[in-house]
Amino acid sequence: MKSRQVQLVEYPRGSVEPRHFRVAEVDLPDPGEGEVLVHNTFTSVDPGMRLRLRESGPEGYFNSFPLNDAMDEILTVGEVVESRAEGFSPGDEVSHAWGWRDYSVVKAGEYSLGGVGTLRRLDTSIAPAVKFLGPVGNMALTAYVGLVDGAQVKEGDVIWVSAAAGAVGSLAVQIAKLRGLTVIGSAGSPDKIRYLLDELGIDAAFDYHDGPLVDRLREAAPDGIDVYFDMVGGDHLQAALSVLRPWGRVAMCGALSEYESPEPQPGPTNLFQIVANNLTVRGFRASAYLHRQPEATQQLGAWLKEGKLAYKETIIEGLERAPEALQRMLAGDTLGKTLVQV
Amino acid sequence: MKSRQVQLVEYPRGSVEPRHFRVAEVDLPDPGEGEVLVHNTFTSVDPGMRLRLRESGPEGYFNSFPLNDAMDEILTVGEVVESRAEGFSPGDEVSHAWGWRDYSVVKAGEYSLGGVGTLRRLDTSIAPAVKFLGPVGNMALTAYVGLVDGAQVKEGDVIWVSAAAGAVGSLAVQIAKLRGLTVIGSAGSPDKIRYLLDELGIDAAFDYHDGPLVDRLREAAPDGIDVYFDMVGGDHLQAALSVLRPWGRVAMCGALSEYESPEPQPGPTNLFQIVANNLTVRGFRASAYLHRQPEATQQLGAWLKEGKLAYKETIIEGLERAPEALQRMLAGDTLGKTLVQV
Repeated sequence: MKSRQVQLVEYPRGSVEPRHFRVAEVDLPDPGEGEVLVHNTFTSVDPGMRLRLRESGPEGYFNSFPLNDAMDEILTVGEVVESRAEGFSPGDEVSHAWGWRDYSVVKAGEYSLGGVGTLRRLDTSIAPAVKFLGPVGNMALTAYVGLVDGAQVKEGDVIWVSAAAGAVGSLAVQIAKLRGLTVIGSAGSPDKIRYLLDELGIDAAFDYHDGPLVDRLREAAPDGIDVYFDMVGGDHLQAALSVLRPWGRVAMCGALSEYESPEPQPGPTNLFQIVANNLTVRGFRASAYLHRQPEATQQLGAWLKEGKLAYKETIIEGLERAPEALQRMLAGDTLGKTLVQV
Repeated sequence: MKSRQVQLVEYPRGSVEPRHFRVAEVDLPDPGEGEVLVHNTFTSVDPGMRLRLRESGPEGYFNSFPLNDAMDEILTVGEVVESRAEGFSPGDEVSHAWGWRDYSVVKAGEYSLGGVGTLRRLDTSIAPAVKFLGPVGNMALTAYVGLVDGAQVKEGDVIWVSAAAGAVGSLAVQIAKLRGLTVIGSAGSPDKIRYLLDELGIDAAFDYHDGPLVDRLREAAPDGIDVYFDMVGGDHLQAALSVLRPWGRVAMCGALSEYESPEPQPGPTNLFQIVANNLTVRGFRASAYLHRQPEATQQLGAWLKEGKLAYKETIIEGLERAPEALQRMLAGDTLGKTLVQV
């Protein structure tokens, strides 16, 4: 059997472009003992993938993608076609980490993406399979853990979430609202700001293109903020450190501003504010908090059913357009979760 | 009555020099109701003072020193000469925050230096008064809180302490050893390295002048570190972030590398390691943890009496030499706690 997969042919310097990838047709072995054959339906496009499109990425992070080979460890959902693994049957809807291809042979129990990507049958009574790449999946876990463990939010806190119209950000702002926080969001276009204010109903929002970030933030939060949910790093983190109140917290999730820089970017010049105001900056990866997955899935699944949680997806059709989807997401041209329909 | 005090005449750009200060003779009022007159014996010289020698310092930090006026809020010990405050009598040894002068009129109960500097009678059964500017005073509290609350150290952790031969660092490395950690220290001269290894008995030490910091750190800690006690910032913090293991912690106490820079210095280029390895960076100021003062004083006082704690002081004699003492300390030319004997 043949399978189509996206392969990286060159590590991009600067912006990601479709020319850095190709679609290859490869032989797919029959599933062996303990394996299943999955027909993938949706595959994920995540900002953090950019860090793996480098010959050597951050130490301790997921491995770099190899050149001219399958890009492993990308979250995906699909339907089991054939199973030689106990507990999985044809027709089961599953998630796994062998995405950016149309069919995958997946070993049951094989640990991947820090556990997040391990083959798992989906409970579609909670939500349709595709939502397990979003509001009841890893995005949910990331937003939930960022607030609960990363920032240790309390009712009444004033929180700023950057990249707030994105997959994680749009969940984080809504969970924060549901937990009784005052929520400020930032994003990169007027459409996104309208979405945040009108559809997600957060308290204040601004476009980071509109003049000095720290001024916009101070306007939105005249008395300062208690929490910054950082998806961007760089100038965003610098602004947050200036505006965080004593005992403030930063949940550090990503650094979008740096992902496409060919050279390492210097950090904020005002890190001393961490000392001056007794701040805590905590980095976190959802994969390190898998014990939270059941509660995050249940909680967000319930809110989703009750209509308390809005969730947008930008779906690009066709496996061959996955690189274009990544390019558009990194350029800020997508809203909510970016997905490829295989 | 006349009193001599050191005054700042110019905000230094770059290195601090004695010419930025002068000694002024001023009239000292008689102590009013609730006040005491103190003859100061030792006055403190702290790295953080450098941040207050700027027209505008970090937001939320202690106020900048004014020009041509008394430099308030500097820790000092002395003896009460005259008291009009309940609970204080002539001959009492006290600490307060109205240093860099020979005599001070101090209001009992007046909150200063975040509480640390509030007038306090010293229990000299624990240690001589001068030690309350060091191993049983604010330095002790800083080292103790940095380990306990900032870094939340556990037995078995591998810790790196920068500026380890300084007032806080030399206590931090010893407390860490006494708590069962593996301790690596860095400092800026062969003498200091010998002191760390031979007198304080830590596990490894290196001079930060000896080639790439990250290489020296990796040699000292081939399996990485769990905790970094940061007194330096800049390249030291960058090296720590590269070598910290998953779930590592940074207790951020100061940023010596930046204090004398006329321009704001960029932060490390590898802050993403905070995300990649689920790190926590916690800034702290001793003054925010005053509830720890009794236990820190008791614990360190006991260790000091038992001979388990070594402590060096560099004492410069003469109030007029306080600026020189500060200059030398910032240049790394002093060992242990830097003090001025008034």
